[in-house]
Amino acid sequence: MPTYADEPADKPADTPTVTVLGLGPMGRALAGAFLDAGVRVTVWNRTPGRDQELVARGATAAASPAQAVAAGALTIVCVVNYDAADAVLRQDAVTDALKGRTVVNLTADTPARARDTADWAAAHGIRYLDGAIMTPTTTIGTPDAVFLHSGPEELYREHRPVLDLLGGTHTHLGEDIGRAAAYDIALLDIFWTAMAGYAHAVAMARAEGITARELAPFAQGIGAILPPLFEEFAGDVDDGTYSGELNPITSAVSSMAHIVEASESHGIEAGMIRAAEGLARRVVALGHGTDGFMRVTELLGRSRTTHSRQ
Amino acid sequence: MPTYADEPADKPADTPTVTVLGLGPMGRALAGAFLDAGVRVTVWNRTPGRDQELVARGATAAASPAQAVAAGALTIVCVVNYDAADAVLRQDAVTDALKGRTVVNLTADTPARARDTADWAAAHGIRYLDGAIMTPTTTIGTPDAVFLHSGPEELYREHRPVLDLLGGTHTHLGEDIGRAAAYDIALLDIFWTAMAGYAHAVAMARAEGITARELAPFAQGIGAILPPLFEEFAGDVDDGTYSGELNPITSAVSSMAHIVEASESHGIEAGMIRAAEGLARRVVALGHGTDGFMRVTELLGRSRTTHSRQ
Repeated sequence: MPTYADEPADKPADTPTVTVLGLGPMGRALAGAFLDAGVRVTVWNRTPGRDQELVARGATAAASPAQAVAAGALTIVCVVNYDAADAVLRQDAVTDALKGRTVVNLTADTPARARDTADWAAAHGIRYLDGAIMTPTTTIGTPDAVFLHSGPEELYREHRPVLDLLGGTHTHLGEDIGRAAAYDIALLDIFWTAMAGYAHAVAMARAEGITARELAPFAQGIGAILPPLFEEFAGDVDDGTYSGELNPITSAVSSMAHIVEASESHGIEAGMIRAAEGLARRVVALGHGTDGFMRVTELLGRSRTTHSRQ
Repeated sequence: MPTYADEPADKPADTPTVTVLGLGPMGRALAGAFLDAGVRVTVWNRTPGRDQELVARGATAAASPAQAVAAGALTIVCVVNYDAADAVLRQDAVTDALKGRTVVNLTADTPARARDTADWAAAHGIRYLDGAIMTPTTTIGTPDAVFLHSGPEELYREHRPVLDLLGGTHTHLGEDIGRAAAYDIALLDIFWTAMAGYAHAVAMARAEGITARELAPFAQGIGAILPPLFEEFAGDVDDGTYSGELNPITSAVSSMAHIVEASESHGIEAGMIRAAEGLARRVVALGHGTDGFMRVTELLGRSRTTHSRQ
């Protein structure tokens, strides 16, 4: 695909136009991918100066967010959270300028915030899609990028050709506007919990005189066995079957107790694995010691039911 | 490789002989792999009856652990933990029978327990190797099995041909007898923390009306990005560089706060991710908010130094 970064004046009349609000690392990656794809890009960021490289590549710097969103039919928002998004979008001048236009909010936050923003958009005649970016900034514009979207399907289809210019795969998860955020939160939960577990494991290894680089090939081996287990255990959870024949939750408790003991013997706090061990022990105490570890999912769901009855 | 399960009387005189103590799922898998490889296998388990299928395949059932270890030069131990291993090995009759023989202890526990068992073995003239099995029972006897070993290298080399009959890859990590257990604990830390994060994520998804099977393909995508990050971040930790240019720890804090909020809004306890968030917030509070998340490893190491000075 040709790029027009050095010749913005040459863009044909039907060149798509996109506004990007928020120029953190991800916002800059999004705007840069649009520029590389030959899109007319207008950018704005609360903190000045973040737009310089993009302007040098052909982007137009807007003087205000209202001016930015007025530049075209589609505004992409990518800021730190919905408090930051609200602080920009819910200014009267911006809200007014957005009327009849489309916002695709790729900011990460909770499903509840996505639903609240959709309500605000509907009340102001703003067309609204919510989305989430599941891959690092370096993937944007490449086939490795993963985008999730939710909201009105017709609106998604209308803007899909422009969104595709960001590269990667785009999945529309449904009309429920909170669905992309719900997937995002669940997937980030997996990611950050695993990363925190890795950091803790590296700290323990180093306390035993093992470098992170020595551990890494084996850690990669553990990482490689997770995806097929994720698939296998998803079926267990949906079907309510939790066979522990080959690996009963009592074995998991034993392993986690060893980890806690080894960690604390080095004075390394073990809060995360202690929390996991506590869940597993409660499953055993409830009489399910021969089930598999994923039975903790039902325990978490049960605590939910109990709470919601209060 | 031919199997001799149906014709134990035909084994040639130089057939290797192995004793397996402990017939839980993993012990049975080990004994079964040895049988498949044509080894003469003697088995014993504290709870009777677990040996029936193995005996039908050609194993010899010993009447006592002392009789079992006396059957050959090499005893493999695979029980639930070192308390269970001690309860068998440290009976006088067993200890006496093991004198001059080799124990390869594939039971999982802490490095401290491995070192303690090596001391006991040395005091009783027992040759001792410690090891760990990093893959599920279903991998035993296949190329996917991963075994870690530590202890005297000469002893390891002597028994390596028999250990190889278990399939997979065998790595000798060094003479420090606790090293296999140290790797094992660190790798199990990664595994169980990630699995617990997955279980929590599935519980959150289900509270949002997303089935585990719907989440699974995306969860697998997250799982697939972990191994290369493990390798990249290992270098950061060893070198003390924690670049957060593309993903500062303040972003991690923001993500984790969203996860906690979404979890608790459904009444689903969030102890693990709260613990991870707490570590990240402390790194930010120490003035390292622009560093990457792996800086928490240093925080954990620092708490260790503080404790060890007490």
